[in-house]
Amino acid sequence: MAIITLTTDFGHKDHFIGAIKGTIYKELSDAKIVDISHSISPFNIQECAYILKNSYKAFPEGTIHIVGVDSEPTLENKHIAVQVDGHYFISANNGVISLITNEIKPDKIVEISIPNQAQGSFPVLDVFVQVACHIARGGKLDVVGKEFKALKELKDFAPRVTNDGKTILGNVIYIDNYGNVISNIQKSLFEAYRNGRNFEILARNKKISNIHDKYSDIIDFSKDKSKRKGPGDLLALFNSSGYIELAIYKSDLNTVGGASTLLGLDYRDTITINFL
Amino acid sequence: MAIITLTTDFGHKDHFIGAIKGTIYKELSDAKIVDISHSISPFNIQECAYILKNSYKAFPEGTIHIVGVDSEPTLENKHIAVQVDGHYFISANNGVISLITNEIKPDKIVEISIPNQAQGSFPVLDVFVQVACHIARGGKLDVVGKEFKALKELKDFAPRVTNDGKTILGNVIYIDNYGNVISNIQKSLFEAYRNGRNFEILARNKKISNIHDKYSDIIDFSKDKSKRKGPGDLLALFNSSGYIELAIYKSDLNTVGGASTLLGLDYRDTITINFL
Amino acid sequence: MAIITLTTDFGHKDHFIGAIKGTIYKELSDAKIVDISHSISPFNIQECAYILKNSYKAFPEGTIHIVGVDSEPTLENKHIAVQVDGHYFISANNGVISLITNEIKPDKIVEISIPNQAQGSFPVLDVFVQVACHIARGGKLDVVGKEFKALKELKDFAPRVTNDGKTILGNVIYIDNYGNVISNIQKSLFEAYRNGRNFEILARNKKISNIHDKYSDIIDFSKDKSKRKGPGDLLALFNSSGYIELAIYKSDLNTVGGASTLLGLDYRDTITINFL
Repeated sequence: MAIITLTTDFGHKDHFIGAIKGTIYKELSDAKIVDISHSISPFNIQECAYILKNSYKAFPEGTIHIVGVDSEPTLENKHIAVQVDGHYFISANNGVISLITNEIKPDKIVEISIPNQAQGSFPVLDVFVQVACHIARGGKLDVVGKEFKALKELKDFAPRVTNDGKTILGNVIYIDNYGNVISNIQKSLFEAYRNGRNFEILARNKKISNIHDKYSDIIDFSKDKSKRKGPGDLLALFNSSGYIELAIYKSDLNTVGGASTLLGLDYRDTITINFL
Repeated sequence: MAIITLTTDFGHKDHFIGAIKGTIYKELSDAKIVDISHSISPFNIQECAYILKNSYKAFPEGTIHIVGVDSEPTLENKHIAVQVDGHYFISANNGVISLITNEIKPDKIVEISIPNQAQGSFPVLDVFVQVACHIARGGKLDVVGKEFKALKELKDFAPRVTNDGKTILGNVIYIDNYGNVISNIQKSLFEAYRNGRNFEILARNKKISNIHDKYSDIIDFSKDKSKRKGPGDLLALFNSSGYIELAIYKSDLNTVGGASTLLGLDYRDTITINFL
Repeated sequence: MAIITLTTDFGHKDHFIGAIKGTIYKELSDAKIVDISHSISPFNIQECAYILKNSYKAFPEGTIHIVGVDSEPTLENKHIAVQVDGHYFISANNGVISLITNEIKPDKIVEISIPNQAQGSFPVLDVFVQVACHIARGGKLDVVGKEFKALKELKDFAPRVTNDGKTILGNVIYIDNYGNVISNIQKSLFEAYRNGRNFEILARNKKISNIHDKYSDIIDFSKDKSKRKGPGDLLALFNSSGYIELAIYKSDLNTVGGASTLLGLDYRDTITINFL
């Protein structure tokens, strides 16, 4: 039995998630449902895509991902089911799929059309759950819709490299639970242009001149404890998703603040890397 | 094996939910536990009832719902297990069951009395879990308590219709994750009195003259994009639970605000519908 | 198949939890994963220990607990897997295990060393999940590391009893979802020194002279409703974990406040019990 994942902006209080899970279990008593996140900022498909992009591959092939963000169908955003990279995604055609899977070409896309399709304000329950259960039972996409080509393409911010190859200009694409600031500059891009040069990362009025592989690498254990860097100090990191991230070591966003609040960096803000 | 659902005001941080789930799995290794919500406002049985009322029917018949809000037994609020509408509910007799199931007559109610019943401050763990596991194993209600008649009845706000049939006066009964304001006026009541007349919905100083079936119906796709209504605009909706709801299209309560904050509407406030 | 529990400070929004669950299911399709908490304050191993200490025993013996707080290995805090009290814990050797299991001597501790061990910033995914799956499949600890003796010991605040046996000085060790204030004074200690004497509990400028077994015991049902204590009144409790707790009956931290905000008590603050 395939896994069905849920990624929504429904929050954790309302009845929506309970209704969805009950409906799935009513149809498939041995379903395996996994919550990826229900705390996406309302209607924020960029955030939704970031979270799915960095988690969907962890699941077994054949997993069915319900994308419950901005899911109402409109004349311009039809409901679609997409088979791509060994996984299934069910969403409105609002661009979120193109942000999740980027350059990977979908194997199949169908525009969803099921009998007695409800037209209400809760399509995740009325439509996506039916389609997910159909796929989980081993059903074909052709049965729930007709083939469709016009996948809506949205472009994420892409980092720019200056003509002289001396500078990479990136943007903040996500701020995590610790207030750590994730840029869209990937390690592979950084390394491709670095050519062994020294560099400085500029974010607001801060400058960082090296990038660690894990947070605690900021600590130089050869130094006396009183002279080491540690909690509260700024660092740059190649994070576990392959992006360059700015972090405050052991930050707590709710008390002392994190990199986002301490640097004053928000979604879309610029991060610059100069090779020296 | 029946599903056991959990609806509590325990929040997501403390050890309570972990202890409950561990105890259930210790007793029933193949239990299926579903979280409906742990974010009910503390001791708010109206909110708890709204959420359960709108989700319990999605679950298969025979599902066991543990209601962990205001669950301490007192001389006035005994612990009860109720079989109603094909489902089981375990709660204190604080009125929450009458709010969840309204006019549906319970098939059976027992006042819980189990051997060595703990009398502490965590009855969901000490009592409800035992009863839920008993029912999940196919046990009878009679074994965990003696029949009981005095189900505590609480009345929800009911909408009033004026004698001339020209006005429905309703109240706000819930505010959801998006700040959308749900009234207690059901579509069926509205339609029963409408008789094809035009109408206006009054909420504070706002007036709305039509009701949509889904949020995006606020968009008139025949108009040029720059002239359409869209994000930030107010609308009324027959929502997925059958209530009239006031919403701001694509609102984000944490940033720009939702209908509740923008209209200044809170729980209990009045919403008026005048037929013209 | 053993249960795998997750206790982290990852929050509920980011992709971390989804990635962890997907990876576990990819390796063990019939795994049973239980979230204990993902809302630990960042890097707060005291809080993490309090929550695990009060929930792990509820799970069946053999349960595997992944501790995802302050989990990066350093020269001083290696990754360890510990078998203790019939359970398994996987964590960094940062002291959290000693706070969870206190005086219980571990049966076995290994310093984790697995082939191709990733050295990145997401060791819960890269290392702990592998070890948990190995144990869940019935594997031995010896296979994932070599025996290790130097379990880092942290001491929790311990209550002090004055020489004359007249006073117990305790501290706040946790504040729960309701704002209830949990002290480190256990019922057993209190009873051992009480000797039938009257007492007063002092917390800031408040004095309490009895301790209840459940919250609603504050209500004296023999009194007229208008003269009873009830919502908003302060009480002391032997809570379900055996600690003395100060609570406001039916408090809501987000609206009227709880014991922590109303008494002005925070983590570490002193609570005094004088025997009279």
